[in-house]
Amino acid sequence: MSLLVQKYGGTSVGTVERIEAVADKVAGFRAQGHDMVVVVSAMSGETNRLIALAKDIQQAPDPREMDVLVSTGEQVTIALLCMALKKRGCDARSYTGGQVRILTDDAHTKARIQEIDDANMRADLAAGRVVVVAGFQGVDEAGNITTLGRGGSDTTGVALAAALKADECQIYTDVDGVYTTDPRVVDKARRLEQITFEEMLEMASLGSKVLQIRAVEFAGKYNVPLRVLSSFADGPGTLITLDEEESTMEQPVVSGIAFNRDEAKITLAGIPDTPGIASKILAPVGKANVEVDVIVQNVGADNTTDLTFTVNRGDMNKTVDLLSNVVKEIGAREVTSDDAIAKVSIVGVGMRSHAGVASTMFTALAEEGINIQMITTSEIKISVIISEKYLELAVRTLHSAFGLDAEPAQA
Amino acid sequence: MSLLVQKYGGTSVGTVERIEAVADKVAGFRAQGHDMVVVVSAMSGETNRLIALAKDIQQAPDPREMDVLVSTGEQVTIALLCMALKKRGCDARSYTGGQVRILTDDAHTKARIQEIDDANMRADLAAGRVVVVAGFQGVDEAGNITTLGRGGSDTTGVALAAALKADECQIYTDVDGVYTTDPRVVDKARRLEQITFEEMLEMASLGSKVLQIRAVEFAGKYNVPLRVLSSFADGPGTLITLDEEESTMEQPVVSGIAFNRDEAKITLAGIPDTPGIASKILAPVGKANVEVDVIVQNVGADNTTDLTFTVNRGDMNKTVDLLSNVVKEIGAREVTSDDAIAKVSIVGVGMRSHAGVASTMFTALAEEGINIQMITTSEIKISVIISEKYLELAVRTLHSAFGLDAEPAQA
Repeated sequence: MSLLVQKYGGTSVGTVERIEAVADKVAGFRAQGHDMVVVVSAMSGETNRLIALAKDIQQAPDPREMDVLVSTGEQVTIALLCMALKKRGCDARSYTGGQVRILTDDAHTKARIQEIDDANMRADLAAGRVVVVAGFQGVDEAGNITTLGRGGSDTTGVALAAALKADECQIYTDVDGVYTTDPRVVDKARRLEQITFEEMLEMASLGSKVLQIRAVEFAGKYNVPLRVLSSFADGPGTLITLDEEESTMEQPVVSGIAFNRDEAKITLAGIPDTPGIASKILAPVGKANVEVDVIVQNVGADNTTDLTFTVNRGDMNKTVDLLSNVVKEIGAREVTSDDAIAKVSIVGVGMRSHAGVASTMFTALAEEGINIQMITTSEIKISVIISEKYLELAVRTLHSAFGLDAEPAQA
Repeated sequence: MSLLVQKYGGTSVGTVERIEAVADKVAGFRAQGHDMVVVVSAMSGETNRLIALAKDIQQAPDPREMDVLVSTGEQVTIALLCMALKKRGCDARSYTGGQVRILTDDAHTKARIQEIDDANMRADLAAGRVVVVAGFQGVDEAGNITTLGRGGSDTTGVALAAALKADECQIYTDVDGVYTTDPRVVDKARRLEQITFEEMLEMASLGSKVLQIRAVEFAGKYNVPLRVLSSFADGPGTLITLDEEESTMEQPVVSGIAFNRDEAKITLAGIPDTPGIASKILAPVGKANVEVDVIVQNVGADNTTDLTFTVNRGDMNKTVDLLSNVVKEIGAREVTSDDAIAKVSIVGVGMRSHAGVASTMFTALAEEGINIQMITTSEIKISVIISEKYLELAVRTLHSAFGLDAEPAQA
C-alpha cells in the first residue's frame, strides 16, 4: 500500500463525464488500499474564460484580484470531483490552496511555494478519505490568495508529494508518457520507460510540453519519483527519477530528440571586432524583453566579426528594427534575419560518459546533406540550428542514428 | 461622511458592463468621502450554472462540496469589481467570506452567521480602500466554506453593516424601492419613502421578492437602517427602519397591498365534529412536507364541520390524493379543491392604533361584488382569499380605499 499523489490536468477534468472517469480511476486506487491525494486543474477552457472577463475590464488586470478570480477555476473542479467520489461510496474532502494551507510568497500570479502544512491532509488520510486539492494556488502570510502561474498544478502535485513523502507523484495528462521524440514527426518514436530529471528538464526547455519545468526541478530537488501517464488509457507511463549509478550503464547514450520551430535567426555581419561589442548589441535586445537563445560569434579574416543569435519568431521583426540603429552606431555592415530555421537537439545523460556523440550527430546530418548553421552544447544536450525544411528529415535521421527506433533490451 | 454598506445583486453585476456601472457608482460615493463596503452576488446565471454541473454528478450533491462549488460565483464578482474600481483610480480590496472572516455555524448550504471579524475591513477603510466582500458565504470554525442559502447576500450586507455599525445598508436591486403594490397590477402604485421592518417582513412573506426575509429580520434585530434602491436608476429608494414613535402618527394606516396566486384551496366537508379532528387531517399533510397557509374551520348546524385550508398550488393534487383516504377514515363527506384562488393582503403598522380597518376592507370588496372565501389576520396584516379572477380588481379597489393612490403629504 502506497501513498500516491495524482494530478489531473484541465483536459482530464474538462467535462462532467471526464470528472466521473477520474473518480472511477481514483476510487479504484483507493479500493486497492492506496492512500490518495488528488490535485486537479480547472476544467479546460475555464481559466481562459476567466482571464477574458478580466481583460474586458483591465488590460493589465490587478495581480492580486487576478489570483482571486482565476483560483475559482480549480475550486469548481475539487468540489465536483469530491461529489463524484462520494457518489461512488468513496469518502473524500476538498481543499483550496488556502485550506491545505499551501503557504507561498506574495508574488501574485507567479508565487512560489514556501511551506505546506500537511496536518489536515494527514488527518483525512488517516480517516480513510481521499484528499482532493486545488492545484495552482496557495495563500501568502497575510491570507491573500496567490497562484503559481500557468501549469502550476504540476508544481502543486510535486510539492504535496514532497511534503507528504509520497511514494510517487503521478501526473495524468493527455499523452501516455514521455517519448523519444514527437510521434507526429517520427512514426517510430517510442515511449520511454524511464528518464532522468536532468534529461526531462532539457526536453521541457526545448519545447516538450508534457511537464512544467518548475515541477520537474522541484521533483529533482526533493527527489520525488515522478510518473507521467495518460488519463485516457492504461499503461505504466514514463518514470522520471534521479537515476544515479544503478541503471545508467544500461542506458542509451541519447534518450530523446527534441525540436522546435519557434525561433528565428538574426545576423549582424561586418562588425568591427572590438571588446564589448557583443554586449553593445545584446543589451538593447534584453532591455526590450526579447529572449535570446543560441548565440554564435565568428571572427572573420578582415578584422571584422559576425554575430548570430536566435530569438522567438514573434520577436524577430521588432529585434531587427531595434538593431538597425545599433548597426549604424557600431559601424557594422548589415543586419539580416531568417525565420525559416529550426532547432534540433539530442538529449541524454549518457553523453557524459560517452565520447564521439557530437561527431555521430554531425556525420548523420551531413550524410543527408543537411547543413548545420549553428551549434550549441550543454553537458547532456547538443543542439543544432538547421533550415526548417530539413526538420523532419533531421529528427528521423538522428532518431535512427542513436538507436532509438529499436525497442531497447530489457534491463 | 458616512460609512455605507452597499449590496449589489446578480442582475446588477450580470455582465462586465454592469460591473463597470457598479464601479462608477461606488467610485462616485467614495469620491464624496464616504467609507465604502460593497457586497456582491454572483453574476446572474452563474449560480444556476454551477448547480447544474453538480446535479449532473449527484442528484443530491454533498452539501459541504456544494458550498465549495457555488461560493466561487461571488468570488469571481469581487475580483472583477475590484479590477473595475482600480481602473478608475479607486483603491479596493476583495474579500471572500473566509478572508473577512465571516464565521458561521456548520450547516452547509443554509449556514447562519455567528460572528464577523471587522479588523481587516477596518484597516482597509482606514487606508482609504473600498472593501469588496463576497456575499452569501462564510467559514465555519474548522475553516470549511459555508453558504447562507439563496439570497444570502442581502444577509451578508446587513450583517456587515451591523458589525461595522454602518450608517446605512443599501440594497441595490432591479427595482427602485418598495411599492404600495405591484405596479404591473395597479398603475397608481407608488414607491414608499419609508416602511417599517415589520411591514417589510409581512410584504416579503406574502411574496414581495424585493428583500430576503432573513436580511430584514437581521436588520430589525440590530436596528440597521436598510434602504432598497435601483442599480439602474437614480433615486432615494425606500428606507426600512424601526420607526417607533416619531413618524408613526403621520403614517397611513395601510402601507401596502400584497398578493399572490401561488395557492390552492382544499375543503373537507361534512366532517363529524369531534375533538382533535383538525389534527387528524393536517398531520399527514405536514408529514408529506406540504406547507399549509390559511386555515378556516366552520361548524355547521348538523353537528358536522367543514375544514378549508390553502397549500401551494403545486402541492394541491398530491394533497387531495393524500386526503382521499383520510376522508374515509374519519367519515367525512368529501374533499374538494380549487386552484383558481388568490390571496390579497393589506399590511400596515397603523392597524395597531386604528379600528375599523377590516370593515373598510370588507366593505370595499363587497361594493365591487367580490366574495371573500377565507379571512386571516395578524397584528399588522389582514389577508383574504378570493376568486382569482377578481385579483386585479381587488388590489386596485383596496389601493384606492386605503388612500394609496394619492401622493402622501410630506412629513
